Amino acid sequence: MTHYSELETPCVLIDLDKAEANLAHAQELANAAGIALRPHIKTHKLPYFAKRQVELGAVGITVQKLGEAEVMADAGLTDLLLTYNIIGSAKRARLKALHDRVTIRVVADSAECVDGLAETFTDAAHKLGVFVECDTGMGRCGVQSAADALALARRISAAPGLAFAGLMTYPAAGKHRESAQWMAEAKALFDAQGVELPAITTGGTPDMAHMNEAGVATEYRPGTYIYMDRSQVAAGAATFDDCALTVLATVVSRPTDGRAIIDAGSKTLTSDLLGLQGHGYVVEYPDSKIVGLSEEHGTVDVSACATKPKIGDVIRIIPNHCCPVTNLFDRVNFIRNGDLVETVPVAARGRVD
Amino acid sequence: MTHYSELETPCVLIDLDKAEANLAHAQELANAAGIALRPHIKTHKLPYFAKRQVELGAVGITVQKLGEAEVMADAGLTDLLLTYNIIGSAKRARLKALHDRVTIRVVADSAECVDGLAETFTDAAHKLGVFVECDTGMGRCGVQSAADALALARRISAAPGLAFAGLMTYPAAGKHRESAQWMAEAKALFDAQGVELPAITTGGTPDMAHMNEAGVATEYRPGTYIYMDRSQVAAGAATFDDCALTVLATVVSRPTDGRAIIDAGSKTLTSDLLGLQGHGYVVEYPDSKIVGLSEEHGTVDVSACATKPKIGDVIRIIPNHCCPVTNLFDRVNFIRNGDLVETVPVAARGRVD
Repeated sequence: MTHYSELETPCVLIDLDKAEANLAHAQELANAAGIALRPHIKTHKLPYFAKRQVELGAVGITVQKLGEAEVMADAGLTDLLLTYNIIGSAKRARLKALHDRVTIRVVADSAECVDGLAETFTDAAHKLGVFVECDTGMGRCGVQSAADALALARRISAAPGLAFAGLMTYPAAGKHRESAQWMAEAKALFDAQGVELPAITTGGTPDMAHMNEAGVATEYRPGTYIYMDRSQVAAGAATFDDCALTVLATVVSRPTDGRAIIDAGSKTLTSDLLGLQGHGYVVEYPDSKIVGLSEEHGTVDVSACATKPKIGDVIRIIPNHCCPVTNLFDRVNFIRNGDLVETVPVAARGRVD
Repeated sequence: MTHYSELETPCVLIDLDKAEANLAHAQELANAAGIALRPHIKTHKLPYFAKRQVELGAVGITVQKLGEAEVMADAGLTDLLLTYNIIGSAKRARLKALHDRVTIRVVADSAECVDGLAETFTDAAHKLGVFVECDTGMGRCGVQSAADALALARRISAAPGLAFAGLMTYPAAGKHRESAQWMAEAKALFDAQGVELPAITTGGTPDMAHMNEAGVATEYRPGTYIYMDRSQVAAGAATFDDCALTVLATVVSRPTDGRAIIDAGSKTLTSDLLGLQGHGYVVEYPDSKIVGLSEEHGTVDVSACATKPKIGDVIRIIPNHCCPVTNLFDRVNFIRNGDLVETVPVAARGRVD
C-alpha cells in the first residue's frame, strides 16, 4: 500500500469515500425534489465518475464542450446534454457525428445558432433536441426575456430536423431565486400560448438544497458537488470535511519564520479567487494563509500557526475552485483511508474545443 | 494554405516572425550588455524554441521543474539550469538521472536542501553545480542576506559532490534596481572574504533593457519575452504589435447590444490578472473589454465599439499572461503572414513536478 504522503508533489488526491458521499447526497436531494439529476462532468472530467453518477440515478450527464462529449461518448456514456452554443460548420459536423451514435442535445440562444443547426440537421426521423438558453440573471449567454424564448422555441420547432427540448439556464450563485421566478413566468407564457415546454433544466451546486424552489424545473445540473471546494464552503454548501479533492504539495523553502513556500502555484491551484481572499485552505495548517501564487510557487503566511511546517513536509490544500484544477493535471490519484487506490488519467482534460 | 481564421477555436496562435524578432532582440541586448542569456522555457515549453534560443546565442536554458528538464533533455538540450529547490529523495533521484546525461545545475536556499543534495550527489569527479537562491525583494524563496548566502555557499563547497555555482535571484518587476544593489553588496562581501563567486544569474522580461544595471550579473534569464503579453505591454516592455501569442476565439452569443460572449474562458486565458483590469486585449476590437470569465465563456463588453462583432466572428486575444496559457493547450499553431505553418505539441505542458 502506498500512503498519499509518499506521492510526488504537486499532485491531486481524490478521496473516494467523500466523493461517493457527495454523489449520493445530491441524488437523494434530487429524488426528494422529484427532479431529474444530470451532473456536469466539467468538474471531474472522468468517465469513471460519469458512469458512477448514472449508476446512482442520474438521467445522463452534462458537458460543456464537444471535446468533452466525444471523450464521454467514447467511454460509453449515452445521454449527453451539451450546454453550449455550437457555432460554425466544423463544430456542427462533429456534433452530427455524435448525434449519429448517442443521444445528445444542445442549447441555442440566437436565430443564427438555430439556423446553423437547422442547416446541418435535416432528418425529421432523427431530430436534434435543442434547448433555448435563458439569461435569468447570470449575465452570460441566453435570451433576455420569456417572449424571446418563445420566439426562439418556435423557430426551432419550425426546422424539420430540430426539436424544441425546453428551456435551459445556469443561475450564478445567489441568483437562484431570481432564476426560478424567471422560469415560472416563462412557463406561464408558454402555457398561455399553448406551446409545449418539455423540460426546464437548471443547475449550480451552491443552490442544490433548493433544487426546485419555483416548482417548474424538471432537471438539475450540478457540477462542483462531487468534489466541493473552498468557494462552496464559503457559500455554505459544504464543510471542509466534505471536500474530496485536495492538492498535495511539499514545503520547499522556509525563507523567514513567517513564510513557507510550497511547490503548488497557479499551475496547480489556478488563480481563481471567486471572491475569496487567498488561494486555498491548508488542511494541516488551518491558521495559515496562501497569500500569493507564482506559476510554480505558493507563498504561505504561517505566522499565525502555533506549529510551523518544515522543509520537506507535505500538506494538503483545498483549492478555491476545484474544476479548473483537474484540468491542469494529466492524472489524479484515487485515495481511500489515506492509501492510494489507483492513479487515473483525466480523460477530458484540455478538451477546450 | 490554411488561414488562421479557419482553425477551430479556441486555439493558440504563435506568430513566428514576431517570436523570432523578440528572440533576436533579447540576444542583442544581452550581447550589448556583455551578459550571457539563458532563456526560461516556461513560457513556450517547446523544444523547437529552446533550440532556436541556443542557436541564436543563448548559453543554455532555464527550466522550473524536473519534468520540464526531462522533456528538454530528451529533446537534445544539453545545458540546463533548474531554478528550483529540489526536495525529497524521489526528486533527487530524477535529478541524478539527468545529471548523468546532461549539464544540469540547480539552486538551494537552505541547509536542508543542500544537505539532501549532498547525500545524493557524492562523486567529486562529477559534481553537481548549486547556486544559492537569494531573496532580493521578490518575497518568495531565497536566503535573506548576503551573509546567509555566503554561509550557504560554504556549506555547498564543503560537500564533496557539490560545487558552488554562484548566486541566483528572480527580481519581481519593479524590484530590479533593488535586486541589482543587493547583488552588488553580496559580491563585495564574497570578494572581501576571498570566496570565489563564479556567476550571478538574474532575470525577468520587464527589466530586460537594464540587464546589467549594477554591473555584477553575468547571466540573464528572461522567459516571457519570446511571446510578450498584455502585462508586458502594461509594464512598457513591449507593444501590442510585439505580442507573438494570441488566443483565437469565436463569438458564440450576442445576448444584448453591448455584450458578446466568446468561447475563450479561464480554461484558455487563465484567471491571471497581474494587477490589470480585464482579462485580455482584443486585437480586432481594441475598444472592447473582457470583463468576465467562466471556465468556457468570456464576457466581452463591446458597448464602446463603433462596429460590433457578430455571432460566428473570430477574434484574437492577447492574454494578460502568456506563460500559463500555453500550459492549457496540448498544441499551438505556428503562423506566418496569417497562414498556418505547423501545429506542434506543447511538449513540456503539464509537467508540474
